[in-house]
Amino acid sequence: MGMNFAVLGAGRIGQVHADALAGVAGARLVAIADPMAEAAKAISVKHGCDIRTIDEIATSADVDAVLICTPTDTHADLIEQFARAGKAIFCEKPIDLEIDRVRACLQVVKETGAFLMIGFQRRFEPDFNVMRQAIDTGKIGTVEMINLTSRDPSPPPVSYIVRSGGIFRDMVIHDFDVARWMLGEEVETVQAAGSNLVDPAIGEAGDFDSASVLMTTASGKHCAISCSRRASYGYDQRIEVHGSLGSVSALNHAEARVQFAGPDGYTIPPNQHFFITRYMNAYRAEIEAFVKAVTEGTPAPVTGEDGLRALALALAAIKSVKEGRAVKVSEILG
Amino acid sequence: MGMNFAVLGAGRIGQVHADALAGVAGARLVAIADPMAEAAKAISVKHGCDIRTIDEIATSADVDAVLICTPTDTHADLIEQFARAGKAIFCEKPIDLEIDRVRACLQVVKETGAFLMIGFQRRFEPDFNVMRQAIDTGKIGTVEMINLTSRDPSPPPVSYIVRSGGIFRDMVIHDFDVARWMLGEEVETVQAAGSNLVDPAIGEAGDFDSASVLMTTASGKHCAISCSRRASYGYDQRIEVHGSLGSVSALNHAEARVQFAGPDGYTIPPNQHFFITRYMNAYRAEIEAFVKAVTEGTPAPVTGEDGLRALALALAAIKSVKEGRAVKVSEILG
Amino acid sequence: MGMNFAVLGAGRIGQVHADALAGVAGARLVAIADPMAEAAKAISVKHGCDIRTIDEIATSADVDAVLICTPTDTHADLIEQFARAGKAIFCEKPIDLEIDRVRACLQVVKETGAFLMIGFQRRFEPDFNVMRQAIDTGKIGTVEMINLTSRDPSPPPVSYIVRSGGIFRDMVIHDFDVARWMLGEEVETVQAAGSNLVDPAIGEAGDFDSASVLMTTASGKHCAISCSRRASYGYDQRIEVHGSLGSVSALNHAEARVQFAGPDGYTIPPNQHFFITRYMNAYRAEIEAFVKAVTEGTPAPVTGEDGLRALALALAAIKSVKEGRAVKVSEILG
Amino acid sequence: MGMNFAVLGAGRIGQVHADALAGVAGARLVAIADPMAEAAKAISVKHGCDIRTIDEIATSADVDAVLICTPTDTHADLIEQFARAGKAIFCEKPIDLEIDRVRACLQVVKETGAFLMIGFQRRFEPDFNVMRQAIDTGKIGTVEMINLTSRDPSPPPVSYIVRSGGIFRDMVIHDFDVARWMLGEEVETVQAAGSNLVDPAIGEAGDFDSASVLMTTASGKHCAISCSRRASYGYDQRIEVHGSLGSVSALNHAEARVQFAGPDGYTIPPNQHFFITRYMNAYRAEIEAFVKAVTEGTPAPVTGEDGLRALALALAAIKSVKEGRAVKVSEILG
Repeated sequence: MGMNFAVLGAGRIGQVHADALAGVAGARLVAIADPMAEAAKAISVKHGCDIRTIDEIATSADVDAVLICTPTDTHADLIEQFARAGKAIFCEKPIDLEIDRVRACLQVVKETGAFLMIGFQRRFEPDFNVMRQAIDTGKIGTVEMINLTSRDPSPPPVSYIVRSGGIFRDMVIHDFDVARWMLGEEVETVQAAGSNLVDPAIGEAGDFDSASVLMTTASGKHCAISCSRRASYGYDQRIEVHGSLGSVSALNHAEARVQFAGPDGYTIPPNQHFFITRYMNAYRAEIEAFVKAVTEGTPAPVTGEDGLRALALALAAIKSVKEGRAVKVSEILG
Repeated sequence: MGMNFAVLGAGRIGQVHADALAGVAGARLVAIADPMAEAAKAISVKHGCDIRTIDEIATSADVDAVLICTPTDTHADLIEQFARAGKAIFCEKPIDLEIDRVRACLQVVKETGAFLMIGFQRRFEPDFNVMRQAIDTGKIGTVEMINLTSRDPSPPPVSYIVRSGGIFRDMVIHDFDVARWMLGEEVETVQAAGSNLVDPAIGEAGDFDSASVLMTTASGKHCAISCSRRASYGYDQRIEVHGSLGSVSALNHAEARVQFAGPDGYTIPPNQHFFITRYMNAYRAEIEAFVKAVTEGTPAPVTGEDGLRALALALAAIKSVKEGRAVKVSEILG
Repeated sequence: MGMNFAVLGAGRIGQVHADALAGVAGARLVAIADPMAEAAKAISVKHGCDIRTIDEIATSADVDAVLICTPTDTHADLIEQFARAGKAIFCEKPIDLEIDRVRACLQVVKETGAFLMIGFQRRFEPDFNVMRQAIDTGKIGTVEMINLTSRDPSPPPVSYIVRSGGIFRDMVIHDFDVARWMLGEEVETVQAAGSNLVDPAIGEAGDFDSASVLMTTASGKHCAISCSRRASYGYDQRIEVHGSLGSVSALNHAEARVQFAGPDGYTIPPNQHFFITRYMNAYRAEIEAFVKAVTEGTPAPVTGEDGLRALALALAAIKSVKEGRAVKVSEILG
Repeated sequence: MGMNFAVLGAGRIGQVHADALAGVAGARLVAIADPMAEAAKAISVKHGCDIRTIDEIATSADVDAVLICTPTDTHADLIEQFARAGKAIFCEKPIDLEIDRVRACLQVVKETGAFLMIGFQRRFEPDFNVMRQAIDTGKIGTVEMINLTSRDPSPPPVSYIVRSGGIFRDMVIHDFDVARWMLGEEVETVQAAGSNLVDPAIGEAGDFDSASVLMTTASGKHCAISCSRRASYGYDQRIEVHGSLGSVSALNHAEARVQFAGPDGYTIPPNQHFFITRYMNAYRAEIEAFVKAVTEGTPAPVTGEDGLRALALALAAIKSVKEGRAVKVSEILG
C-alpha cells in the first residue's frame, strides 16, 4: 500500500514537491536525484530518502512514480525515459518550450501508455476550486469575461530569465492554464503586449517583465491577463469570472488576517510573499490528486494535452507581440 | 405651501441644521436668533434670513416651526415657551439633564398639544434604516445581542465638557437612543464603567472620556456600548445587531472609497472626520421627517418620551458607575 | 455675480445636468430648450426656468453658458452655433462620431476663441481625484499597468444602441478618457475585442455588448479595459493603477454601507444602480469646475482635444476589432 | 532526541491534540489512554501508538510528557499524579471549576517542581500573535479598550452543558484569558450578564447561552466580551484592541477567500465552522511551544497561575450576574 516517489531535481521546486509529499498520506519519498550533491543531500537528510542517479531511479524496483523538477530543457527527455521505464510521471510545466518537441514527447507517452500529469498546481488551489464549482453549478450563469491578475513580488535574477523561455512561457503560462480551466472552452484568438518596465536587465536579456494578454473564444468569451514581475504588496493572484447571472472572484491571501487602524486609515498586511507559501496547499492537493488518479486508474487531472495547449497560448502571445496582430491558436497548433 | 423655520442658536449645531434645512424641499429658514451677533449674522448672510430675538420669533406670524439649538440648560424653557406660542418644535437632545425637569416640560407639551420632536439624527441615517428594515422584515430573526461602537476622532475642549452633563448624557445618549431603536424593547438594567484615559483635563473636570455600558432587557437581550473621545482613524460609528438567524452591521464611512497597496499592505483612508460630515444626510432626512409629520398631522418620529428614556439610561449608567452595581431603569423613571 | 445657464435637451442627461446645476453655488438655470414640450416643461417647473428655443437662447442676453445635452448628431452644429454666439459651452461627449467633423468643429471653436468643455464627468469624481493626486504625489511610483472595469447593470434599448455609435464610442469612450487621464501619457497602440453575449438584439443591430481593450503607450505602459452592458450586481466602476512602488484602486459604491451575516456568509448590498446616482457628485463638481474656469479665465479642465483623443481611441478599437490587428492611434489621427 | 507523549482522553479534544502532535517535529505520540476502548483504539490505529492505562503511563519510562484531555473533574487529580510521576504536563483548561481545588493542585505542582502548561490555544494563534506584537512594539500606543466577540456556530448538547461548569467557565474562559493577554494588566472589576436566548433546554439545565462581560483594570482600561452559543454564519472569533494611537483587530476566517457578486450584492463565504478548523494552527503551535519550553528549561508560556486567574474572572462574572453588582476579582482570589 502507498506509492513510492523519487524526485528528480533538488532545486527550489524540487524542495517544494518533497515538502508537499511529506504531507500526503500514502506517499513516500524514497529517492532524490540531483547532480548538485549538496542540494540532493539537503533533501535526503530532511526527508530521510536515498540519493540516487536518474538512471538508477529509472531501474529502481521500489520507485513507483517520479516528480520531474529538473531544468525545463530536460523535461521531455526525462518524460520519455520514465515513460519507457514504466513509472508514473509527474512533470513540472512546461514539457518543453517548443511545440514540436512537446508533441514528439507526448507521442512516446501515448505509445508506452504511461501515466503523465503536468504540474499546474493552481488547478488544485482550494479557493479556485470553490470558484470552479460555483461556475459548474450555474451560480454565475454563462461565463462571459474573465480577468486574471498575476504579479510576482519581485523579478527573478536574469540568470533565471535567460533560461526561462520568456515571461509568456514561464510566468503567464500558469494564467493561460487557469484561463482554459475557467473558460471551459478553448481560446481561439490571442492578442498580447509586452513591456520592459521593472528591470532593464530583463529587457537586455530579450525578455519582458510586464505582459498583457487579451483572448477570445469561438463563442465570444473574453479573457484578459495582466502580469507583472513586480508588486510591492506581495504575491498578487486574483481571478475574476464574470457571468450572465453574476460574478465570482478569488481574493488575495494576506500574511495575517488582522487590520490596523490609525491616522492613515485601515490597513491589512501585504499578501503572502510568494508562490511556495501561497500555493503550498495546492502543491499538496496536486500530489494527492496524482496518487489518487494513478491508484484508481483514472486519467491524469492535468494532461500532457493541457501542457501543450497552455504552451500554444504562450507561443500565440509571443507571435502577437512580434507581429502586432491577433493570432489564431490554430496557427500555432496547426 | 411649505414650512417656515426659525433656528434658535447659531452655534455649530445651529449651523448644521440651517445647512440641512437648505436642502429640504418645502422648508424655508426665515429667522435666526442668537445673542452672539456675529454668529447670527453669519447664518443670516449665508441663508438669506432675518435676525430676530427669541421673543420676536415666538410672536412671528411667519414662523411655523423652531429648531432649538441653544445650550442644553435653555432647552426645557424654550420648549415650554414655543409650545405655548403654538409653534411646531424640534429640539436638539437633551431636553434637560435632569429627569424631573424633562417631565415638567413634557407635561407642558402635553397640555398645549404642541408638536415636539427630539433631535436624535441617527434614526434618520440611511444605512441604519436599511438595518432597521432588515430587522423588521425578519432577516436576522429575533434580536439577541447588540454591540455599538462610538468613538469621536478627538475630545472636545474642557469648556464644552463642563457644560455637557458628562459623557453619558452628552455622547453616549445617542447610542442609548440607537440601542432602544434597534432593540425594539425597553432596557431593564444598566451596568457601566467610565475611565479617564484620553485627556487628564477631562478627568479633572469630573468627567470620563472612555465609557462602556452593558444593558439587558426583560426578555434577556443584551446591548453593549463602547465609547471613546479618541480615535486616530476618524469618526468611528458602528452598530452590530446579532439575531437568531444572522446579524446585520453598519460599517464606517471612509473619506474616499479607494484602496492603496504597498509594502505595508492594503490601506483604505480613515473615516469621515466627524459627525457633521458623517451625518449630514441624516440631518437633512431628520428635517424632512419633521416637516412630513407636522404637515400630515402624524406623531413625531422621535418624541419627548424618547428623549426622556434615553436620558434615563444615561442617568442609570452614571448611577451604576458611582454605586458599582446593576441599576434598574425603573429606579430612575419610578 | 454668478453664471446663467441654459440647458439644451431635456432628456435624461439634460435632467441630470439641470439637477446638478441646482446644487452649484453661483450657477442659475434660466432656460431649457427641447422640441419635446413635455420634457422641457418638466424641467421648467422643477427648476423654475424659462422654456426657450435654441435660437432664442443663442441670442438671449441673460444666458452666459449652455449645456449641450441634445442627441449626439447635433453636438458639433450646436457647439459651432454657440461658439459664434459668444456663449461659454459645455458639451456632453462625444462632439461627433467622426474625427473629421470633430476637427472642423474644434477649428470653429479655435477661431471664435470660445470656451468649450467636454462632459467626461468621471474626471470630477472625488474618489478618482484622490487616486490621481496619489499618483501625482508619487505614492505609487511610476505608473505601469492600468486595469479599468466598467459594467452597466443592464443594456439600453436597441433604439438607443442604433444611434449610439456603438459600444466603443458610446460606453468605452468614458474609459478611454479615464485611461488617458490616469496614464499621464498618450496611447500609442490599441488592440480590442468585441462580442455579443448579453442581448442578441444588440448583435442584430450591428453592435457589441461586451468589449475588451488593450492599449500601450510609447514608454511601454499597458492599460486594459473590460466593459459589459450587463452586471447583475449593479453599476460596476473600478480603476486599478499599478505602479513601481504600489497600486491604487477605486472601489465600487454599495447602495448602503451595511453587512449581513447568515448561513450563506457575509453580504454587502449591490452597487448603486447606475450612473446618475453613482456620479451625481461628479456631475456637480463638473459644473463647478466649468464655472470656475470660465470665471477665472483658465483653460477648460476637459478640452475639445480631450474629446477628440478619446474618440480616436474608440475608432482605433473599432478598427482593431475589424482588422484583427494592433492599430496605431496615429493611423486615426494622422 | 525528541519528546515522547501520551494523550490522556480520546474524546474530541484528545483527538485534536493527537492530530496536532503529528505535525510537530520532534514530538512522538507513544500512548493513548481512555476507558472507552473504541475511542482509544481509533487514535491508536490512526497514529500508530500504544493503548495503555493512565497508571501504566505514569510509570512508563518511554513517556516524557502527558496531554491531559480527560473530563474536567479529573484534571486536578491527574496533574497531581503526573507531577509526582515526574512527567511534563500539558492540561486542557480548566484545571478545576473551583478555586480552592486549583490552588491545592498548583501547590503540588510547585512542590514537585513539575512543568505544567495550561491549554489556552488562542495564545498561539498566528493572527493574534501579530496583534500582540503590534501592541508590544507600540503601534497602537497605550491599550485603552478591548472588544472580544466570541460566538459558536451552534450550542453543544445539554449533556455537555451540564458538566461544563456553565458558559462563563466553559466558553468565556478562553476570552478571559485572551483579555488578560491583550490587556497586559490584571482585571480589577467584573460586571456581567447572562441570558437564555438560544436553546430553552440550556436554561432548564441552569446555564446561559448568551453572555456579556464588562471588565476594568486598575489603570482604567475596559474590556467587553460578547459571547453566544449561536451564529448562523460560522464560528465568530474577533478581537479589537483600541489604543491611544490606533487600533488593531483580528478578523474572522472565511471558509474560502472568494467573493460572489449577484443581485443580492457581494458575498463572501461563512466563517470556518468551528474551533478545530479555526484553531488547528494554534493547537500545533501550542504543542511546539510546550516542547520548546520543556526542552529549553524555560517557564511554561501559559502557566497554572494563568489558569487560576482566568477561572477567577469566570467566577467573578458568575457572582456579578447572581448579585447584580460589579465584583472585584480580589473577592474571588482573596
